[in-house]
Parts: sequence; C-alpha cells; structure tokens
Amino acid sequence: MREEFRVDLNIVSQLLVDMAEAIRAAMRHATRALLTADRAAAESVIERDAEIDSLYRQVEERVCDLLARQAPVASDLRALVTALHVAADLERMGDLADHVAKTAVRRHPSPAVPAELRRVFTEMAGVADRIADKIANVLSKPDADLAAELDRDDDAMDDLHRELFAVLLADDWPYGVETAIDATLLGRFYERYADHAVNAGRRVVYLVTGETVTD
Amino acid sequence: MREEFRVDLNIVSQLLVDMAEAIRAAMRHATRALLTADRAAAESVIERDAEIDSLYRQVEERVCDLLARQAPVASDLRALVTALHVAADLERMGDLADHVAKTAVRRHPSPAVPAELRRVFTEMAGVADRIADKIANVLSKPDADLAAELDRDDDAMDDLHRELFAVLLADDWPYGVETAIDATLLGRFYERYADHAVNAGRRVVYLVTGETVTD
Repeated sequence: MREEFRVDLNIVSQLLVDMAEAIRAAMRHATRALLTADRAAAESVIERDAEIDSLYRQVEERVCDLLARQAPVASDLRALVTALHVAADLERMGDLADHVAKTAVRRHPSPAVPAELRRVFTEMAGVADRIADKIANVLSKPDADLAAELDRDDDAMDDLHRELFAVLLADDWPYGVETAIDATLLGRFYERYADHAVNAGRRVVYLVTGETVTD
Repeated sequence: MREEFRVDLNIVSQLLVDMAEAIRAAMRHATRALLTADRAAAESVIERDAEIDSLYRQVEERVCDLLARQAPVASDLRALVTALHVAADLERMGDLADHVAKTAVRRHPSPAVPAELRRVFTEMAGVADRIADKIANVLSKPDADLAAELDRDDDAMDDLHRELFAVLLADDWPYGVETAIDATLLGRFYERYADHAVNAGRRVVYLVTGETVTD
C-alpha cells in the first residue's frame, strides 16, 4: 500500500514538473512575442494553454483518486493537499503567460512595448524565467533553500515593477494613455506570475520543513 | 461516522459562508473608501484582511483534519476538495478588496477616482456586491441556478470593464497617465474579484450537479 502510494505520488510530482516546464516555456514564448511582435509565438502560447489546463485537471483527478483509494494521513496527506495548491498556482501562471501573449496579438504588427520599456520588461521576463526554472527544480527535488530564494527573486520583480511605474510617470513619457495602460497590465501579469511562484515555493517549504514562511 | 462527518462538513460550510460575508463587507467598505476618500474605511479593510486569512487557514485545517480522520470517498471527498478551492478563491477576493482599499489610502486625501469614472466604478462595485451576496447564498444552500447566474454577472462586469477603457482612451481624457494607471489597476481588481466568484460558483455547480460549466 505504502509503496503503491509512493509510486502514485511520484506520478503527481512528475505532472507538476511538467506543468512548471510548460508555464516556463509559455512565458518565454509570450515574452518573445511581446518584445519582437512575433505573432506566431503568441498564437502558439494561446493554443497551448489548453495543455496546461489539461495537466492541471490530471493532477486534480490523480490527487482525488489517491485520497479516495489510499486515505493518506500526516505527511502523505499534506503532500497531496500541497500538490493541489501548487497545481492551482501553476495553472494561473499559465493564464498570465496567455495574457501577455494576447496583448502581443492585440497590438500586432506594432510592438506592445515601446523602446523605453524594453529593458525593464526584458529584466522582468528574466526574473520570471529564473523563478519558473527554480519552481521546476524544487518540485523535482524539494529543497527549502532553493524555495526560499524565490522570495528574493520576488523582491527583484517588485523593484522592477516600481521602476516600470517610474518610467510611465516621468514627465517626458511620450506615448500617451493607451501604451501606459498596456504597460500597467503587462507589469501586473509578470508581477503576479512571480507571486504565484512564491506561493507555490512556500507550500513546498512548508511540506519539507513543516514551517510556514511569512512576509 | 457518517453523522459526525455531516456535522463537521457543516462547520466547514459555515466557515465558507463567514468568509463570503467577510469579503463582501470588505469590498463594500473598500469601494466607499475609494469613492468618498474615506481613510478610516480603507484602513479597517486593510486591518481586517487578517481575519479573512485566518478563516482561510481554519477551512484548510478542518478539511485536512476531516480527510485524515474520516477518509471520505465519492461525493463527501468532492465536497471537501471543493471547499479548499472555494476558500482559496474567497481568500483572493479579500486580497483584491484590500488592494482597492490600499489605492484609496495611497491617494488620500485626493479621491483616487475622478468624477468621469465614478459612475462606472459605482456600477462595477454594485456587480461585485451582487456577486458576493450570491456566493454567500450558494454556499449556505447550494443552488445550481443561482451559481449559473454568476456567469451573467461576470458578463456585466466585463462590459463595465470595457466601458472603463473606452473612457480612459477617449481623446478628451483630461487626467493624464497616473490616474489612468490607477483606474486600470482598480478595474482589474474588480474584474478579478468577479472572476474568482465565478470560479467558486462553478465549483459549487459541479458539486451539486456533477457537470462542469465551461465558457
């Protein structure tokens, strides 16, 4: 019974790793679409969001099946409840990549991001990618130290987010309201992507150490 | 055992109803703070977010305790997993009310919403309040018809959200970029509040009917 549980739990973990890799690829392609007005890249992100949703449903079904068949307790139960939460965060990260891609499509063939904002969005995307990579690693091999690093990455994202607003609010902002609205929403999408990664990371820390990380 | 399970499940349901009432009150007060530059109302929303978070943790603990002690299957198991998801949506709705309140505080004593946008935000807040009321009702007495109404409320919210952008993007928008950024984020907070309510409603429909509602 216990051995069977381990095997099933490993399948759930692998699905979560697959999700983390998929949401990482989605945000990479969405960023490329955004910064290079690459419509094909954007459309592939939008199409492939269904695959991420399907992985999410598979995690849910397997977890519910395991809860029903094996009636786990203690740390096994905690691992399954954590998997449900982490899957929900990853699914949402996929939606946020989809939102970035849709912004690129809406403005195509113009770039949605003007020259003045390319650097800050490139850096936000870099932090997002680092975060997604860490989540995939933490899920393959739970590691409280690595999960805790996500908090620092989130701080870096928040700094970039503030920098974005400083550019938008400078007296010499030349692009008007529409571009500012796009940039505001895009900034929010990257920031929320990081927040969900941190949530997921905290859940993993709690699972490994039994200690809650707070702000 | 079964009778004991019912009693415990009712406690979980009551906690969810308490959460729904708390997030409804939070958004009402946050909206008042926003539209009347009422700093005390805003600060009470921000302080009381901890109560919503505490209710969320209580739901999680009770659900995990029930899973461990009673090893439910079939519809009982589904009810508990649904409770976890609904609680997560409600907790996030509380955060969004908190974000609205924080925007009001940041701009105080100026109003964060200029005269031209008061009507659209008043209507968005009205839809948000109707939605929160329905969620509280659906949770006290599961009702697939009422839950399905949430989709229509969400459409009304999306229409208002589009209307907001039309005002911001009109050639005669007089308030500049900073106010447009605030309004963009505020619009997003109300819209996401509605989205989470719809998610929660769909989970309840699924619980009652076994049928998934899709877009």
